Amino acid sequence: MLQRFNLTVIVINTGTELLLGDVLNAHLSFIAREIFPLGLRVDRQLTVPDGPAIRSALAESLEKAEIIFVTGGLGPTTDDVTRENTAELLGLELLHDATVMAAIATRAASRGFRLTDRTSRQADVPEGATVLPNANGSAPGLYLAANSTRQNKSPHLFLLPGPPRELQPMFTNLVLPILREIVPRGSAVGRRTYRIAGMGESLVEEVIGERLLGIPGIELGYCARPGEVDLRIIGEQPALDQAEAIITAGLGAAVFSRDGRNLEEVVIKLLTERKQTLVVAESCTGGYLAHRVTSVPGASAVFLAGYITYSNEAKARTLNVDPRVISEHGAVSNEVARAMAEGARKEAKATFALATTGIAGPGGGTSARPLGTVFIALAAHGASTLVECFRFPSDRQTFKELATQAALEMLRRSLL
Amino acid sequence: MLQRFNLTVIVINTGTELLLGDVLNAHLSFIAREIFPLGLRVDRQLTVPDGPAIRSALAESLEKAEIIFVTGGLGPTTDDVTRENTAELLGLELLHDATVMAAIATRAASRGFRLTDRTSRQADVPEGATVLPNANGSAPGLYLAANSTRQNKSPHLFLLPGPPRELQPMFTNLVLPILREIVPRGSAVGRRTYRIAGMGESLVEEVIGERLLGIPGIELGYCARPGEVDLRIIGEQPALDQAEAIITAGLGAAVFSRDGRNLEEVVIKLLTERKQTLVVAESCTGGYLAHRVTSVPGASAVFLAGYITYSNEAKARTLNVDPRVISEHGAVSNEVARAMAEGARKEAKATFALATTGIAGPGGGTSARPLGTVFIALAAHGASTLVECFRFPSDRQTFKELATQAALEMLRRSLL
Repeated sequence: MLQRFNLTVIVINTGTELLLGDVLNAHLSFIAREIFPLGLRVDRQLTVPDGPAIRSALAESLEKAEIIFVTGGLGPTTDDVTRENTAELLGLELLHDATVMAAIATRAASRGFRLTDRTSRQADVPEGATVLPNANGSAPGLYLAANSTRQNKSPHLFLLPGPPRELQPMFTNLVLPILREIVPRGSAVGRRTYRIAGMGESLVEEVIGERLLGIPGIELGYCARPGEVDLRIIGEQPALDQAEAIITAGLGAAVFSRDGRNLEEVVIKLLTERKQTLVVAESCTGGYLAHRVTSVPGASAVFLAGYITYSNEAKARTLNVDPRVISEHGAVSNEVARAMAEGARKEAKATFALATTGIAGPGGGTSARPLGTVFIALAAHGASTLVECFRFPSDRQTFKELATQAALEMLRRSLL
Repeated sequence: MLQRFNLTVIVINTGTELLLGDVLNAHLSFIAREIFPLGLRVDRQLTVPDGPAIRSALAESLEKAEIIFVTGGLGPTTDDVTRENTAELLGLELLHDATVMAAIATRAASRGFRLTDRTSRQADVPEGATVLPNANGSAPGLYLAANSTRQNKSPHLFLLPGPPRELQPMFTNLVLPILREIVPRGSAVGRRTYRIAGMGESLVEEVIGERLLGIPGIELGYCARPGEVDLRIIGEQPALDQAEAIITAGLGAAVFSRDGRNLEEVVIKLLTERKQTLVVAESCTGGYLAHRVTSVPGASAVFLAGYITYSNEAKARTLNVDPRVISEHGAVSNEVARAMAEGARKEAKATFALATTGIAGPGGGTSARPLGTVFIALAAHGASTLVECFRFPSDRQTFKELATQAALEMLRRSLL
């Protein structure tokens, strides 16, 4: 672990729903990514329930951290006690802030809500705190600068609202500018992430792992995702460049992205640049391939249509697959994948067609075609059709992830 | 907050990738949901980086908890130090376990990996620990019973592997049976979740909130999701029944699920029972509606086909939408949505057809058809076609969530 990050950062998330497992904690990830470019990283994170547990979490963190972010507990309900506990713990008075109150009243009026005592509590501000106005909710955020309290020593303390759509713009627009003033400049540590398709984690590590570990000052991380390995390197510029040379030489075209873009974004960009078009014909992936492609803004410039031909009849009628080919080879076969891709390409008059047919499960596997089998075909204008067979025995969603990843990767490789 | 959960539970997650924001913490949610039926809930959760930080997190938690779950840090790399730090902290020897080593060797051989010193370290077991074999990876889990160490007092301690596909089956199959022995019976506290469509959180609260809060011993939670509100109640059986009566009377058919099933599962079940079939025609939702439907195991019995007609040409050719209707009313219109649904139903010979056409953004809005506008049509055998217009101005993925939720809800209502 590099020791270049001198300020200790703690994130405290309040929320009973997090501890009951109803909601995933998205704040930690968001805050971590926002502060990283400043040379900061989160050293520790805690989740506590709504209510008085915030007090002990905050008390023990005050001693350990230079910067603390607290999320949640600023709202109007009785369980929202972050503001009060913080003030008490730091020996600060809560003062009613008329400007904040006016903003709350305006917001309530525009929505036809009436003001209650609970609502007004959100206008209480610990003495000395900077108010961070909330553009998307009632409760403002609060910032207490380090050593601004009656304590001998206190860290920089940010109290932030719980809902992500309130916290996120507040963080980007109001918290980051304050952090830029606090954090000493000059940390040249950067992070790069390489997204790699078609190779397992152990193979990636075997090809380049040892040589990367040989570079002084490089911190290395692998993250395996369905059909993908993300390789993260952290270090100073010269070390990062040295590492990049090793990665490029060792992995070559398997690296599909160096800027965070996912596989569908890379594919859509390549097609857009080449002014080429795509159609998809899906059986086992059930629309997920089309969904991934159409999740990319601007996809409509290259994506013409998708056909989800679940039934054999739909394969025949919409894609013109010969019913005899289906009965002879089975719907999950090299021949049907090929006919689906070629039929779809012709129907939509597209440059490329991708087709999938397979057995997602949980039922339906046979000894000849075990669960997780999928045939993927790529038909292209002026080229012969490629068909590959994969086996992805897994749950239904992971199967869809893996099969669509393999399909997009087949198309990407053909565009290089 | 109810005080019926007497055993304090702490979850400690190790993982630099969590603190860098590369990965969301799914372990907390999984563990919380698994232990809830036993009357346990997580009182506190901590995340620390890979490496020695586990030591202080564990040390401070030993005093506070009766049950501790640690995830991660059991693997072969140098940053994996959970096992060693735990043993040292509790004053236990690490003993090399021949059975564990044999399992690791067998697994390595079957995958063509060679054994290294690092790998063998995973066979070290603190004295007195119960080994929890790992069906999906090398490193076994470890269980140390309360007060089985040289400390005066120590909690039940579970060390679990980091990858979810290793941890989850281990937890369900091996950890839960141990917990059932540990946890005193008789806690009659239950949890029920009601999933509600077509009403906002504030409306739900207005209709039933006050009356639910009037029931003694009920803990209430709302969770707003795209196009849905989840209402969670926790309490003892009689209070839960009382609450359920209020919810049923107040919300009626807006409650689409009482057993956790999502909207697509509910719709597929209704169609399956009625032996009816579905086809979808999508423009702005780009395959996401088909994806949601086909994510339900058994969907192939009712889902015939999906047509993603992004281009006007595809709408005309595949769905037989009259090009004059498109040029007269625009592709995003009541008339085109209707024609898409009716054309798709005819093409696939289905009982029902759902169609979507709208403006997902980020570009493409006009004053007449602002960003987020979507027309949704439901065509049904022997009934007149329904068309509704919604506006969901949001990011592309949220737009898809909201539009498909509205479409599925239209279908569900027509099946009641």
